[in-house]
Amino acid sequence: MQAVPFVGHSEVDVLIIGAGPAGLMCANALANASVNVRIVDQRASRIAAGNGDGISPRTIELLQSYGLAERLLKECCQIHLAAFYNPSSTGGIELTNRTLNVTAPSARYPFEATLNQAAIQDIFLDSMTSLGVEVERSTMPTSIELSKDEDELADPTSYPVRVVLQRFDESEGAQPEEIVHAKFVLGGDGAHSWTRKQFDITMDGEQSDSIWGVMDLVPDTDFPDIRNKCLAQSNHGSLFVIPREKDLIRLYVQLEEKDVIDPVTGRVDKDRMGPDQIFKTAQKSLEPFKLNREGEFLWWTIYSVGQRVASKFSINNRVFIAGDACHTHTPKAGQGMNASINDSHNLAWKIAQVVRGWANMSLLSTYESERRKFTSELIAFDKTWSTLVCGKPLTGQNSGGVSPEQLLKTFQTDFTSGIGIHYHPSIVVNDTYQELAGGLVLGKRVPPYKFMRAADGRPFELQDLLPSDSLFKLLVFTGKFSDPLQQARVESMVADMQKPESFLNRYVTPGSSRFDIITISKGRKDEFNLLRLPALLRPHWSKVFVDDTDPTANFGGEGYSYFGVGSEGALVAVRPDGYVGAIAPLDRAEVLDAYFASFMKIPA
Amino acid sequence: MQAVPFVGHSEVDVLIIGAGPAGLMCANALANASVNVRIVDQRASRIAAGNGDGISPRTIELLQSYGLAERLLKECCQIHLAAFYNPSSTGGIELTNRTLNVTAPSARYPFEATLNQAAIQDIFLDSMTSLGVEVERSTMPTSIELSKDEDELADPTSYPVRVVLQRFDESEGAQPEEIVHAKFVLGGDGAHSWTRKQFDITMDGEQSDSIWGVMDLVPDTDFPDIRNKCLAQSNHGSLFVIPREKDLIRLYVQLEEKDVIDPVTGRVDKDRMGPDQIFKTAQKSLEPFKLNREGEFLWWTIYSVGQRVASKFSINNRVFIAGDACHTHTPKAGQGMNASINDSHNLAWKIAQVVRGWANMSLLSTYESERRKFTSELIAFDKTWSTLVCGKPLTGQNSGGVSPEQLLKTFQTDFTSGIGIHYHPSIVVNDTYQELAGGLVLGKRVPPYKFMRAADGRPFELQDLLPSDSLFKLLVFTGKFSDPLQQARVESMVADMQKPESFLNRYVTPGSSRFDIITISKGRKDEFNLLRLPALLRPHWSKVFVDDTDPTANFGGEGYSYFGVGSEGALVAVRPDGYVGAIAPLDRAEVLDAYFASFMKIPA
Repeated sequence: MQAVPFVGHSEVDVLIIGAGPAGLMCANALANASVNVRIVDQRASRIAAGNGDGISPRTIELLQSYGLAERLLKECCQIHLAAFYNPSSTGGIELTNRTLNVTAPSARYPFEATLNQAAIQDIFLDSMTSLGVEVERSTMPTSIELSKDEDELADPTSYPVRVVLQRFDESEGAQPEEIVHAKFVLGGDGAHSWTRKQFDITMDGEQSDSIWGVMDLVPDTDFPDIRNKCLAQSNHGSLFVIPREKDLIRLYVQLEEKDVIDPVTGRVDKDRMGPDQIFKTAQKSLEPFKLNREGEFLWWTIYSVGQRVASKFSINNRVFIAGDACHTHTPKAGQGMNASINDSHNLAWKIAQVVRGWANMSLLSTYESERRKFTSELIAFDKTWSTLVCGKPLTGQNSGGVSPEQLLKTFQTDFTSGIGIHYHPSIVVNDTYQELAGGLVLGKRVPPYKFMRAADGRPFELQDLLPSDSLFKLLVFTGKFSDPLQQARVESMVADMQKPESFLNRYVTPGSSRFDIITISKGRKDEFNLLRLPALLRPHWSKVFVDDTDPTANFGGEGYSYFGVGSEGALVAVRPDGYVGAIAPLDRAEVLDAYFASFMKIPA
Repeated sequence: MQAVPFVGHSEVDVLIIGAGPAGLMCANALANASVNVRIVDQRASRIAAGNGDGISPRTIELLQSYGLAERLLKECCQIHLAAFYNPSSTGGIELTNRTLNVTAPSARYPFEATLNQAAIQDIFLDSMTSLGVEVERSTMPTSIELSKDEDELADPTSYPVRVVLQRFDESEGAQPEEIVHAKFVLGGDGAHSWTRKQFDITMDGEQSDSIWGVMDLVPDTDFPDIRNKCLAQSNHGSLFVIPREKDLIRLYVQLEEKDVIDPVTGRVDKDRMGPDQIFKTAQKSLEPFKLNREGEFLWWTIYSVGQRVASKFSINNRVFIAGDACHTHTPKAGQGMNASINDSHNLAWKIAQVVRGWANMSLLSTYESERRKFTSELIAFDKTWSTLVCGKPLTGQNSGGVSPEQLLKTFQTDFTSGIGIHYHPSIVVNDTYQELAGGLVLGKRVPPYKFMRAADGRPFELQDLLPSDSLFKLLVFTGKFSDPLQQARVESMVADMQKPESFLNRYVTPGSSRFDIITISKGRKDEFNLLRLPALLRPHWSKVFVDDTDPTANFGGEGYSYFGVGSEGALVAVRPDGYVGAIAPLDRAEVLDAYFASFMKIPA
């Protein structure tokens, strides 16, 4: 590398371009895993309002795994119910259905959380600050190059990505350039991703032909569902009401193309329609209910978005893109920010494993394979949903319109909650022995359930035992340990796991464990003596649980049945992101040896 | 007041002496209520370890009402179970009972929280810092004088207490004195209270004749109940095991008088017995189980405490004492810190009301009447419990000993949980119409229950609608508003409450309300239209609830029955500290007018 005047060189494990939800989520997750990470953004300051605002139940679970849900839950609006309005026979609209907003019985947080994107980003930013990472603002990349040297690309300790960064100072203008040499780069730089363009990654799909106005305001209304999510399909167009933090609501208002498209450019022209006109359209759609506003519009925009997907999510597993850079779709299913956050959640632990030297580079390929599957499903859902939502409602005059039943059927899916995300079999998702734990679906997230800690009877949420801390968790369902036959099986399993070829011994690096063992025994606490359990299964007194009711007998005690685990027990490997990776019978611990051998690296 | 050289004068609404649990709780509560408060402590720095550590279920509820429970729950150890061990026929001890540690079915937090006192104090200190109040350390009062002028004493705006403060600087020694003129002073300065002594308040009661060693350590043991609260009554003396945060436990070890008392002074002499000897006694009591320790003793002491109560809790309602300054008792029921915190919780809102000019000075008299009743009950319980605990266990050789049944019966009370605290009728606790809401006991705290918010179906814990924010809460149980007869009753009640003589109008100060109206309607959310409710009962959309199941139908829907409120509804006034103050039928709102008139002040 030659020295260039006024240019500094530096190295970093991961450079993130763009401090939106995808970039911040990744930066925080990597900082959490003690990975050396930097994040740059061209904006000079934090955003103030607007943009995405819906956090799905699964995303709340995920934030909880990083210790971030508490603050979100304190600041957000919770949406528990969804209401559907259609044209009434007397003019205007009337209620046709009111239902749960979240169709996912296993959701730990059975509601959608809404909060403006700025406040959500602040949660990440404050967490990052406490971990010593700050966004470098007013900073943009001006070039990016990836080495073509195969050996360099294959060596996880190399720095094959060269990025030139240019910082602008408000008073002094452009600063000297810096050349950053990174092991990995993530482009979380939005729908118009600079990173994506540098590598000529195309966006495949089509532009939407429907156009919507969006606005945040404080309503004054007699509409009874103003604090629920609403879809009103009126004869004047469709309207979404999304309640928000404090007294705010957001409106999504369907607009007519002719009113907002510049016929010359074919693009949305915001000068053709202001917020007052959009609001008038909303008022008309909501009749006979009155809708006025208190104070100003807090934010508004007009958008027309297509459903498009990037042709690649990564270049040689060295440069990745995530979030809007990967996929764009309409905001009508409230998925944008969730997809971005979940992209990064999927990627970050894999990068952390590779940077630590714990996993092979091949692990990184599963980012694209897993998230592309999800993205295809998202786009498919968005197309169906958008078509229904933008369609004319079924009325006496329009017998081919969208019926309330059609709408409701499409709405009631566990896909939008994020709970339905299901990754295909791969090197990190086995596909055998599912029958041993039918409620712990290979490739899906571990559902919440409460078990009692054996030592003190304290109830614990299983999801809280699976934090996003870079470790694989081994759930050992021992069955009924007080049954001598089962005890013998458990002891034999422990003997197997203590052999040198067991994954527990193969991947030991002095001073750091890659696994966290959590034992869950069947039966009543009173019949269970923690100290009789083999020491391997009780690395600490706090790691052993029983599937018993809580001390006040109000909940719990049916976890084995809920998870479909029989009296013979099961071994379940949970990935660091909380998804089920592998299942094995107690007497076949070598299934796990093979699972981990497919991507884990033996310490040098 | 004459000018003295080198002496500064200042005024403050409330001066608190002593930054232990009583003082900090009061300072934080007053800061929270925007009362001008100062707090001084003679210690140069925060305490580091030891002292009290048990927080009862009611105290957790109370901390939650100030927004402080979250952090406590994150840091503390939860004790759900209690185990009792007695001599076995083969020597050593054996389990005789294992039971709930908390006997209070209505407890919101059905466990005891343990955490070292320093960490608990930090929760208050950090909250105070965020409210702009810091403890003034290395500062002690050297004199205190209370005016004898009746007019001055009766005038709530006067500053009749004169306290001289002396600050010591580590490097420079004693600093110039400051003379503080306070409206009110609280002595939270411990068992040897300086404040109490200045006013010659005596402590009535007797010194204990039992002596205990206390130590904090990390155990290494095969004792199966080491993470539960345990009382082992062995033939070698009694032993309590109290699990604590992280891996710590605390041991209370019964000692023999002859081993630790100096025969000349009659006092405990810590030189006669060190931690190793105390630990040996504990080991012996726990046989046949092995008890060793990892690392050092983190803290230890020997104590002998009597049950004593101050002859007065206040001088002219201007100088108060709280916590250990008021009452001392053994720590065996885990009540010390709880009694202190609850003293201040009872006092702080009353001082705030008087300082704001909202209430008469007479309100302050209820501090002593309410807390003295509690203290008498505490002392009585402590005497019974101590006697049982210190007694020899029932064995074949000792047929007059304490039986496991006796112990358990005394242990299973809702008194120690704090849930049982019950204040007598007074100007702030009416004694009529209890039958209209049998589950909301006049003089007891409002139990937790979840209601659904009418506007958005979101479940809310009623206790979270009753924060310690200096406001009286008016719970309006409307009955079934969709029933026309009941609707008429509600509308007539609203008309009554809108009359000029209604408390809602009598005590209005422009820009500030003293009341928070919370409406709870009976029936299903779907049959209830918030907007048809009279405007008085929906000051904001977020203040109206229905007694319906939550959207997922998992809980709720039986609140009227749980609170014993019939279909005719009820009006319930809740004090700012969360205790039920008055109940009235909907058609007798004047009962509340009389209730508030007994202590509230009409704005000048």
